[in-house]
Amino acid sequence: MSEKGAIIELIALLKLERHEQLPETLDEMAVQDIAEAIDQTESHEDRLVVFMTLPEERRTDTFSYLPHSAQRQMLADLDNKEAKRVLHELVPDDRTAFLENLDPEELEGMLKLLAPEDLKQSLKLLGYPEESIGRLMTPRFVAVRPTWTVARSLDHIRHEANRGETVNFVFVTDERGRLIDAVKLKDFILARQDAKVEALMDEEFYSVQASADREEAVQVIQHYDINTLAVTDKNGVMLGIVTVDDIMDVAEQEITEDFHKLGGTGSLNISIREASPGFLYRKRIGWLMILVLVNLVSGLAIAMFEDAIEAVIALVFFLPLIIASAGNAGSQSATLMVRALATGDVESKDWLRLWGKEFSVALGLGLTMGVAVSFIGAWRGGPELALQLAMVVGFAMLAVVIMGAMIGMLLPFILQRANMDPATASTPLITSVADVVGILIYFSIAAAILNLPSPVT
Amino acid sequence: MSEKGAIIELIALLKLERHEQLPETLDEMAVQDIAEAIDQTESHEDRLVVFMTLPEERRTDTFSYLPHSAQRQMLADLDNKEAKRVLHELVPDDRTAFLENLDPEELEGMLKLLAPEDLKQSLKLLGYPEESIGRLMTPRFVAVRPTWTVARSLDHIRHEANRGETVNFVFVTDERGRLIDAVKLKDFILARQDAKVEALMDEEFYSVQASADREEAVQVIQHYDINTLAVTDKNGVMLGIVTVDDIMDVAEQEITEDFHKLGGTGSLNISIREASPGFLYRKRIGWLMILVLVNLVSGLAIAMFEDAIEAVIALVFFLPLIIASAGNAGSQSATLMVRALATGDVESKDWLRLWGKEFSVALGLGLTMGVAVSFIGAWRGGPELALQLAMVVGFAMLAVVIMGAMIGMLLPFILQRANMDPATASTPLITSVADVVGILIYFSIAAAILNLPSPVT
Repeated sequence: MSEKGAIIELIALLKLERHEQLPETLDEMAVQDIAEAIDQTESHEDRLVVFMTLPEERRTDTFSYLPHSAQRQMLADLDNKEAKRVLHELVPDDRTAFLENLDPEELEGMLKLLAPEDLKQSLKLLGYPEESIGRLMTPRFVAVRPTWTVARSLDHIRHEANRGETVNFVFVTDERGRLIDAVKLKDFILARQDAKVEALMDEEFYSVQASADREEAVQVIQHYDINTLAVTDKNGVMLGIVTVDDIMDVAEQEITEDFHKLGGTGSLNISIREASPGFLYRKRIGWLMILVLVNLVSGLAIAMFEDAIEAVIALVFFLPLIIASAGNAGSQSATLMVRALATGDVESKDWLRLWGKEFSVALGLGLTMGVAVSFIGAWRGGPELALQLAMVVGFAMLAVVIMGAMIGMLLPFILQRANMDPATASTPLITSVADVVGILIYFSIAAAILNLPSPVT
Repeated sequence: MSEKGAIIELIALLKLERHEQLPETLDEMAVQDIAEAIDQTESHEDRLVVFMTLPEERRTDTFSYLPHSAQRQMLADLDNKEAKRVLHELVPDDRTAFLENLDPEELEGMLKLLAPEDLKQSLKLLGYPEESIGRLMTPRFVAVRPTWTVARSLDHIRHEANRGETVNFVFVTDERGRLIDAVKLKDFILARQDAKVEALMDEEFYSVQASADREEAVQVIQHYDINTLAVTDKNGVMLGIVTVDDIMDVAEQEITEDFHKLGGTGSLNISIREASPGFLYRKRIGWLMILVLVNLVSGLAIAMFEDAIEAVIALVFFLPLIIASAGNAGSQSATLMVRALATGDVESKDWLRLWGKEFSVALGLGLTMGVAVSFIGAWRGGPELALQLAMVVGFAMLAVVIMGAMIGMLLPFILQRANMDPATASTPLITSVADVVGILIYFSIAAAILNLPSPVT
């Protein structure tokens, strides 16, 4: 794609120190791509050259697309006056996003750079709970009154649009600032100039409260296919707007969180590229040690059957196969359920119907895999044990696949019911739990069919 | 949330057969919620009652939000005239989405219901490759010429907006229909009435080709934070637009595909709720059987060390722990990498730098876990073997965790390089491969330290 070409060209110009050609190249690049090029540039000096070569009005836009760590770095490198200007010109939601990622000391330093009015606004937005809609919203929107004419409203809209506000939707508020409707800009253009705003109102609008979880804004925007969502306080007074592009970023973060949880790392909330090894270690060791404990139970389960194993050592041959199959079937089920619950495709009340379906699927899977491995069991059993070992591994496979699928399917639902994130049913957790139960099932079936020493308890 | 209340109320009214109250309830509901209520209604008759109670102009909108299976059902239940009307009024991209999910015979029946002009358009859109941008686009957009005045353009925009087109962006095309710019509606309102369109042009616009993969449209819209994206043919002639709400649906599908692949089910492309057990069985059995083959290699690896195991049966105690830990560390790495590659947080050229970081993280994880289990090794070893068994399990744990993390980290990159989806490195696959290598490492270390019989090959 051509934007990659521009980024490579820009970086090449910096390396060759052909700074005189920078303005022309930058002029043809989108701010998003300039931000990406800056982020890929190692030298602080080069980053600064690119940034300061930009015309003033593009610097803040470029800044808003930098990753947080690059933003911090840039502000530290800029002189005080320019840093103040950039912070002042950032739209309020971008400023909140930048400030909320700072350490307390850094935050204090940054707040000192803000103009009094910006400071007041930022402190107000930072006052909303983490991951709330208030943290995402921008308090800049265009509001008109129902009694205004279309002509007067358009004058007002023109004035606000000139200040850079989003105007695809115009909000109608009452004398106390309470939201009473949202009207498309297009409707103002279609209407007669002397019509009243009231005549355009259809009372169909969507709003969320600033204190609500940001996940709610994602759901409303996705469900109702809207671009701009009104945010109010608990009395319905309009406070700001959230736009679809912010929502897409939030949705991406939430999905990444789900992936990470499902993969057994907990949620990272930071770019892998930027995360330090120490941070990654701390995030990952917790779950791994918990899983070690679960796996030790597997060891204890095996220890119970040590005599049986000594009697028929061939049983160990099938051990990884049997327990892995339980874990694999469970991972499939858990992934399907976690994702279906996350997209709203299934809800927790659907569990019984899905359980029935999952059971029949698992029965089919278990039978197929059981028959397949029973042939291998017959081969490993040799002349004496062919039939018995075929039966042991065939039945064990059938049983563990069904059991693994049931654990994988039900655990996400149980977690959801307990108000926990279903994605906590990570595939490593499902696999490890399935190991324990799989070992017990396998050796119990083996002990029964082969008439082996009973478990040591 | 209140929309849930409305859905429940609607379903209750149907059950109580209080049809006279339906119009009032429906009047206050959004079409998205009506569609959800219809989808939750089992009885065909009740579905039809709700649909036909709606005023004509809301029926098609409601229809467009139904899942595909419910759409098919509804069209089959409607009389021919109403079915024709609904199909005619669907916006072209929704019509394509409906038609592309039909079986060939069903498709033929539906195409017969289309008006000649709609048929021509639908066949053209269905002519684009599956999962291409052409399948997503709507050929309805507003285009003006650079030489027009703002006043003339606004007249044209009003006319098109009245026909229900999306007008947040107005496209500027030349005499051959080639796209030369995209201008915000807001700029037309801000401009002087007698200014030329040329004066509003900034030549900053984004477009994609209709034949390109829809993933590209997702990336451009997300990267550049735009609501409406122009679609052209290979000569730059404007063909249609794709809007952000379509893109969010596509992004959700692609992410679900990634989840499913990572969970080892392959991609389903269908709602779990609607998928038949047979379909789920067929989708899942393939990967499970492939994994059985991988796990059989684990069995063969164990068979090589059967004599060693018979000599020190306590080794089996640690087997599930050691191999599960390799798989768990690998699942973590694979999930982190697959997601980071999908979001563009890392690119395939970053592999070496990430490999270094992952190695140091894995070293830390392996050391911690190795030390922890070596105590358990000492305990299981008893007075005679305490030190040796502690060394065996400690070193084995260190080695398998590093090995698992390396497999999990590198496999997604290798797949990406081979132009395959990195998510094919599913956690069950990583776990199963880690099992094989883990067994070889564990017993080799055990054989060396405990001076056991060498492997049977």
